[in-house]
Amino acid sequence: MNRRGCEGPPPAVAPAVHQDISTCLTEAVGTGGIARDALDRLLAEAGRALADLRQARAAGAQPFLAYADARDDLTAPKAMAADWRARYRRLVVLGTGGANLGGQALAATGAESGRLLFLDNGDGDRLDRLLREPDLDRTGFLVISKSGATAETLAQALLVLGNTEPADVAAVITQPGASPLRRLAARFDLPVLDHDPALGGRFSALSLVGLLPAMFGGVDGEAARDGAQAVLTAALEETSPDRSAPALGAALAVAAMQAWPSANVVLMPYGPNLYSLGLWYRQLWAESLGKDGLGSTPVLAPGPVDQHSQLQLFLDGPGGNLFTILEAPETAPRRVDAALAEAIGATYLGGHRMGDLIAAQARATATMLTEAGRPVRHLSVPAADARAVGALMMHFMLETVLAAQLLGVDPFDQPAVERGKELARRDLEA
Amino acid sequence: MNRRGCEGPPPAVAPAVHQDISTCLTEAVGTGGIARDALDRLLAEAGRALADLRQARAAGAQPFLAYADARDDLTAPKAMAADWRARYRRLVVLGTGGANLGGQALAATGAESGRLLFLDNGDGDRLDRLLREPDLDRTGFLVISKSGATAETLAQALLVLGNTEPADVAAVITQPGASPLRRLAARFDLPVLDHDPALGGRFSALSLVGLLPAMFGGVDGEAARDGAQAVLTAALEETSPDRSAPALGAALAVAAMQAWPSANVVLMPYGPNLYSLGLWYRQLWAESLGKDGLGSTPVLAPGPVDQHSQLQLFLDGPGGNLFTILEAPETAPRRVDAALAEAIGATYLGGHRMGDLIAAQARATATMLTEAGRPVRHLSVPAADARAVGALMMHFMLETVLAAQLLGVDPFDQPAVERGKELARRDLEA
Repeated sequence: MNRRGCEGPPPAVAPAVHQDISTCLTEAVGTGGIARDALDRLLAEAGRALADLRQARAAGAQPFLAYADARDDLTAPKAMAADWRARYRRLVVLGTGGANLGGQALAATGAESGRLLFLDNGDGDRLDRLLREPDLDRTGFLVISKSGATAETLAQALLVLGNTEPADVAAVITQPGASPLRRLAARFDLPVLDHDPALGGRFSALSLVGLLPAMFGGVDGEAARDGAQAVLTAALEETSPDRSAPALGAALAVAAMQAWPSANVVLMPYGPNLYSLGLWYRQLWAESLGKDGLGSTPVLAPGPVDQHSQLQLFLDGPGGNLFTILEAPETAPRRVDAALAEAIGATYLGGHRMGDLIAAQARATATMLTEAGRPVRHLSVPAADARAVGALMMHFMLETVLAAQLLGVDPFDQPAVERGKELARRDLEA
Repeated sequence: MNRRGCEGPPPAVAPAVHQDISTCLTEAVGTGGIARDALDRLLAEAGRALADLRQARAAGAQPFLAYADARDDLTAPKAMAADWRARYRRLVVLGTGGANLGGQALAATGAESGRLLFLDNGDGDRLDRLLREPDLDRTGFLVISKSGATAETLAQALLVLGNTEPADVAAVITQPGASPLRRLAARFDLPVLDHDPALGGRFSALSLVGLLPAMFGGVDGEAARDGAQAVLTAALEETSPDRSAPALGAALAVAAMQAWPSANVVLMPYGPNLYSLGLWYRQLWAESLGKDGLGSTPVLAPGPVDQHSQLQLFLDGPGGNLFTILEAPETAPRRVDAALAEAIGATYLGGHRMGDLIAAQARATATMLTEAGRPVRHLSVPAADARAVGALMMHFMLETVLAAQLLGVDPFDQPAVERGKELARRDLEA
């Protein structure tokens, strides 16, 4: 793979994520907030962690950073996606966890309707229906498993290829080295693309793993990298950690964990296309930090719908949550007819777009939470597009890695879950 | 509405939800579990709450119970759904929170593909695209808002009816009495169906609100009621609270809240069709109990996909979670070719269906959680169909109402969120 690393200055793009943490502090929300001195202590540590990342970027030593800076490696997948678009009506992505969540988050920013289907939860019934559809010959399958041994993904691939009429597998993405999936690919002579062995699944969204399916759907993969790079540059070039948005976010989150040992981090996206990003974020945060009794539980509560579901609890239930309201504008231009709204006694809606209402709901929720003494961070992006999702991915990856350093855990492993694979395997053999 | 109440014995149907709480107790999982004496104290209280519900059912005084016993009221909506099926290719349901979550959960058990679309989160971009589709004339809209004043739903209805070519609104469901939605219906001469004013949105799934869209999709509404009634009868006929599954579940959940003030309740559904039910459950639990600093945060973590996302945190992160593993069998008959599985070094998968693998994963997850000292409850249903979802809905509604009684909060109100509606309204007026 051809990475640009840090030769030459990065392109001069504006920071793509705006952050405001002022309503997280005790001075704004009282004792339910984060104390400034606790935050400052962590920020000093975050400054050292930031310097480590700066070095790692310069040395090309941290793969998830290097992908944000690379572009040349996109040429081949771009051509491949274009070729597939001509061959297939639909691409079905088989994979789970990190093999699938990044692609879904990027695809949500504008993949053509019906073009992509992600089967990330086994989904035997759905796969069964798919394999009986008459136009199966216009469907391509993309099989993704870093290890090449993920049970659900292997079972899916075995069912697809063992079908009466084996379905068309466009490609397999897996790391180099012997594995059941590699052997399956060899047996059926399938194209294999290498999963970067140095890149963990939950940090792989901006590699081939997330970008290839998204580009098949028509999403601009380079824009996603541009957004990530803009955030990376802005975050690492700040020498003062409290001006680096991810460093500040990490210090805040760790301060919350120290204040409330069972803290939840509640992500409330307002705006279209960000729900799948929230699912991606849940994995990143939980699996990277949930170690040694530490970490905090990510809760995804999309607005405004969860105002009708979770908000009562957030306002008046137990405390100990750190809220992030993430805003992206919805741009559908249709406006409510003012005369009609007035005639039915809903004058306040007249002349507004749905996006105006959703933005007003976001502000109302933030106000209520702060009035209730809950700490609320604001993140916003200028549009809910590929660039913004790439930018948010980099923001959250940096924040997670920095938080791990503050907690003293390794963000890149997941030791506790390994035994489960063995247990399920023995169960099936019995 | 014609309700059967409790005249005559209920039909002799087997209990439809199986529960096992043994791996929740300290005797099974150590200090991370629930102490038997704490549970017993709460069970004694739950016995009294159960007796109150028994009385309320007999008197027809509790609407969410009465719907489980009623059948006659389904005749008209059934005919209406059949009529709509002839008129429309697709039904778009406009509504949010309780107006939408129950219908989605029921529809997930088998609504025909593409027949139903639930726009429950504003979704301005999607609505905009819909209103520009060429076959809009084969699309019906169903507008649901109990109050008739829900801002997002009103805005959607105003956009639909204020469209260049007003779209076809099949019906409006709202409670009796003046409201903006009633006025809108009068102005466009739309059919209006009454939302039972005594039934809160999050307890309305088995009424017209959830059943009409589900029946349009081809789901058996009577089966859903049958499942609910079976659970209700089994739960209330038990005079010993520790043999009433919902009473035992409620006592367990409240014991967890008393042990860990920031407890989460983690619902892990394994099996198809239960994700939307999990979203419905989140609203029910959070909004009913999150009051006076009490309640617990529901976390929806579907398996096996979230084994690759949240399980590391659940096993090795902070404690204080009460887990429910909910199993429904997946029945797709396709089996992995044994010779092929062996040839690639995945012999353990040979001859198995995807459903076998998912069931094995559920067992492996339960084993790992209990080994890590986490309390795990098992719930299972015999099939992921309308009867099972109706049964689970009744199980969870009873559990929630009983837990509220143990906590001393009113499960039927949501006082903390009211101010938000006013804030958003004033924001838009400004």
